[in-house]
Amino acid sequence: MTSPPGTPALYEQVAGKIETLIRAGTLRAGERIPSVRRASAQHGVSVTTAVQAYLELENRGLIEARPKSGFFVRPQLRPRALEPKTSRPAHTATTVGVGGLLSRLFDAARMPDVVPFGAAYPGAETLPVAKLSRILASVARSAGARGISYDMPPGVEALRRQIARRSLDWGGNLTPDDIITTCGGTEALALCLRAVTKPGDIVAVESPTYFGVLQAIEERGLKALEIPMHPRTGMDLDALERALKSRAVAACLAVPNFNNPLGSLMPDEHKQRLVEILAGRDVPLIEDDINGDLAHDGTRPRVAQSYDHEGRVLLCGSFSKTLAPGYRVGWVAPGRYHERVKALKFTSTLATATLPQLAVAEFIANGGYDHHLRALRGNFAEQTQRMSAAVAAAFPEEIKITRPSGGFVLWIELPEKICALTLHERALAEQISIAPGPMFSAKQSFRNFIRLNCGHRWSERAEGAVATLGRLVKELAVGG
Amino acid sequence: MTSPPGTPALYEQVAGKIETLIRAGTLRAGERIPSVRRASAQHGVSVTTAVQAYLELENRGLIEARPKSGFFVRPQLRPRALEPKTSRPAHTATTVGVGGLLSRLFDAARMPDVVPFGAAYPGAETLPVAKLSRILASVARSAGARGISYDMPPGVEALRRQIARRSLDWGGNLTPDDIITTCGGTEALALCLRAVTKPGDIVAVESPTYFGVLQAIEERGLKALEIPMHPRTGMDLDALERALKSRAVAACLAVPNFNNPLGSLMPDEHKQRLVEILAGRDVPLIEDDINGDLAHDGTRPRVAQSYDHEGRVLLCGSFSKTLAPGYRVGWVAPGRYHERVKALKFTSTLATATLPQLAVAEFIANGGYDHHLRALRGNFAEQTQRMSAAVAAAFPEEIKITRPSGGFVLWIELPEKICALTLHERALAEQISIAPGPMFSAKQSFRNFIRLNCGHRWSERAEGAVATLGRLVKELAVGG
Repeated sequence: MTSPPGTPALYEQVAGKIETLIRAGTLRAGERIPSVRRASAQHGVSVTTAVQAYLELENRGLIEARPKSGFFVRPQLRPRALEPKTSRPAHTATTVGVGGLLSRLFDAARMPDVVPFGAAYPGAETLPVAKLSRILASVARSAGARGISYDMPPGVEALRRQIARRSLDWGGNLTPDDIITTCGGTEALALCLRAVTKPGDIVAVESPTYFGVLQAIEERGLKALEIPMHPRTGMDLDALERALKSRAVAACLAVPNFNNPLGSLMPDEHKQRLVEILAGRDVPLIEDDINGDLAHDGTRPRVAQSYDHEGRVLLCGSFSKTLAPGYRVGWVAPGRYHERVKALKFTSTLATATLPQLAVAEFIANGGYDHHLRALRGNFAEQTQRMSAAVAAAFPEEIKITRPSGGFVLWIELPEKICALTLHERALAEQISIAPGPMFSAKQSFRNFIRLNCGHRWSERAEGAVATLGRLVKELAVGG
Repeated sequence: MTSPPGTPALYEQVAGKIETLIRAGTLRAGERIPSVRRASAQHGVSVTTAVQAYLELENRGLIEARPKSGFFVRPQLRPRALEPKTSRPAHTATTVGVGGLLSRLFDAARMPDVVPFGAAYPGAETLPVAKLSRILASVARSAGARGISYDMPPGVEALRRQIARRSLDWGGNLTPDDIITTCGGTEALALCLRAVTKPGDIVAVESPTYFGVLQAIEERGLKALEIPMHPRTGMDLDALERALKSRAVAACLAVPNFNNPLGSLMPDEHKQRLVEILAGRDVPLIEDDINGDLAHDGTRPRVAQSYDHEGRVLLCGSFSKTLAPGYRVGWVAPGRYHERVKALKFTSTLATATLPQLAVAEFIANGGYDHHLRALRGNFAEQTQRMSAAVAAAFPEEIKITRPSGGFVLWIELPEKICALTLHERALAEQISIAPGPMFSAKQSFRNFIRLNCGHRWSERAEGAVATLGRLVKELAVGG
């Protein structure tokens, strides 16, 4: 059931056809649509594929299941916004320059009066604050001397064991010895970049990609080579292959599972091909799996590292998006670069704080981490969908919105005339923080894109802020 | 009462004269020495200076005060070991290469069966484990959502306020806004190095210096230019001036207060001159004050930064040597490089763990930090003295030992024939970790030196380990 790279999966094709019927009004709001079995026959696909197609349509907010009655077209307030097209970055490698914007974004995140659509972090109300705090308090008392002492790299073993145990779900098959804990995912990525590059090297990155990655590339004196991204299937591997043929690339950095800001999910066969392409040229892959546990449909996707048999993938993860950003607990499984990353960790921060690691390990072992993740994924899916609906209602019709399959951000293409940096300024003046598109590109492309954080529980305040943003966008659109 | 740079302070001169009398047998073990008032008259100095001289002699283990009876010459088992001479590093800048040794040293620190004379860290038994753990537990419960959330750079304000308050004691006069918190002193130093250098630059460092600094220099692609050190007064400023005249130096990194491994304390007038010399050539000073609170005589020395009026000093500190290595809480006051260091912090670790910062702030504010420091300084002074006496008794007579005025390490010069790396191997085979001299030099000089950690409470086990080391040294000395 594999498709050629770059084309949507079969169930997506089926969902696409039905979506067209709904958009065209052939299937109307409130109307019942054919049963799964019927659809399977109509489209010449297996029942499984038809089920997937209907789930996809549910995810897109187009149909709903009613118990014992079947599937119905949902009422649509207005035609749904389109999604952005595959990105088209320029073909040259670029020195990065996004520093100033980043600092301003995080400064805004410190201000309680500002609506937090800017920096991408989960709202504390979605996290198990009381339980985790109780566990940390208990661990602090019971650990005694150990809690205040260094736990030198590779870091707390109990935590490494829990990560290794969980890695079975992603096809990672890590052992505790494969893992080094870090001060958050940020340190993991920074160590990997330093381990496999030297200043002046070229690194292939997704376009758009998380600005923290671009900042780290800039700091290391590297050049970013931006690879086009499909908004749902992620990196365009044909484009990557072409880029590798024309340039000496020292490393590739990718977020196959729920890229930030797109929320794209690379299909498994693409992951395998990605690993093979890079292996053919002996290029290491830094794989950021920070959002891997956040699939909206609850399925834990594999990591690209699971297709690697030569230790060429450096897999990074963190508990900042799922448990406690402020604990600063991340990790890396650096494959063949293990010793190098470990040595760099000594000069970066010497060790990771001991007690937060012990607390996370205990939460995973006995605190109901899986239960928490199920609730969290549901919250993020709902919050993202609500934000999407609110934006579609408040913004001009011609905008485009991503349809993320995981994580908690939306990427929005505004009318071409609009400068996201100007919008960012005006929004801040109204106490609303957003992330302007140019931050997500080494070339500061995406000048009419913005990213919105949906990590916080939906509220009237959020609703109001989206309405304000919509007004600002419309004012800018008429040349205000 | 200031002396020309390079000469000992007046009280040290007086102490030196009396030490000569004791060494020569003019004053014998058990004999009473003149009262402070008498000594003041005899040597033509103030009573204060005479008191300081007697304290110094006590510190050197030569005399002891007996209540209501006066001062007496202590029994000396054997002539006291000399101290090492001013170091004589080569004049060329060097690419560093100490990585492998460092990783092995920290690996040894993870093994509970190994006697911990290697890595320099305080034993948990000297730290306020129970009290600090209680505070952390209490803070974890009361902080709620705040405890699990990011506290973005510059970091937790309550902690920055406490550091600023304490800086009055060092002449630092920092405000909370001057400070950025970090994941330990290691991150503070690494950020500073990145802020003021680019790969290929030359950095002037002390010789010997802490190997973590050399490792960070290596990782950044910098070259280390080693400046000679007097074992008690620190950096040879004439040598620094000469070096600056002949080479373009991008930065100077120094530990004026209790250099690791020497325990040297730079006199205030030297600190002032150091700042002036560097200002004259617009060279930033990275000042590592991690041991500043650990003066054996209880006097809090000033920081060189207190003489800086142009923001050219980046002052670094940490709570790893005084409170909790495993909390990973350090800080930096980067002067005019503030924005650059803050931006680098985002790409290094994004933020410092929130709860450990809150706990340290609370311990300083209400936990009796000053009371703890007084006890800690006393412990370190005693442990260092005991180690020194044990080494003098067990090692060959010709060795030389530093007389640190703060911190908790000893630097020992072995007979020239002995290779510290070989000794390190043999000691490890006997379950004893030591830090071999070559780690403390970019050129891997000091091949017949070792550093011993005195951060742990003195014990029979330590006594036995020193005896074993003495035997190994003697075996190597006869060519074994």
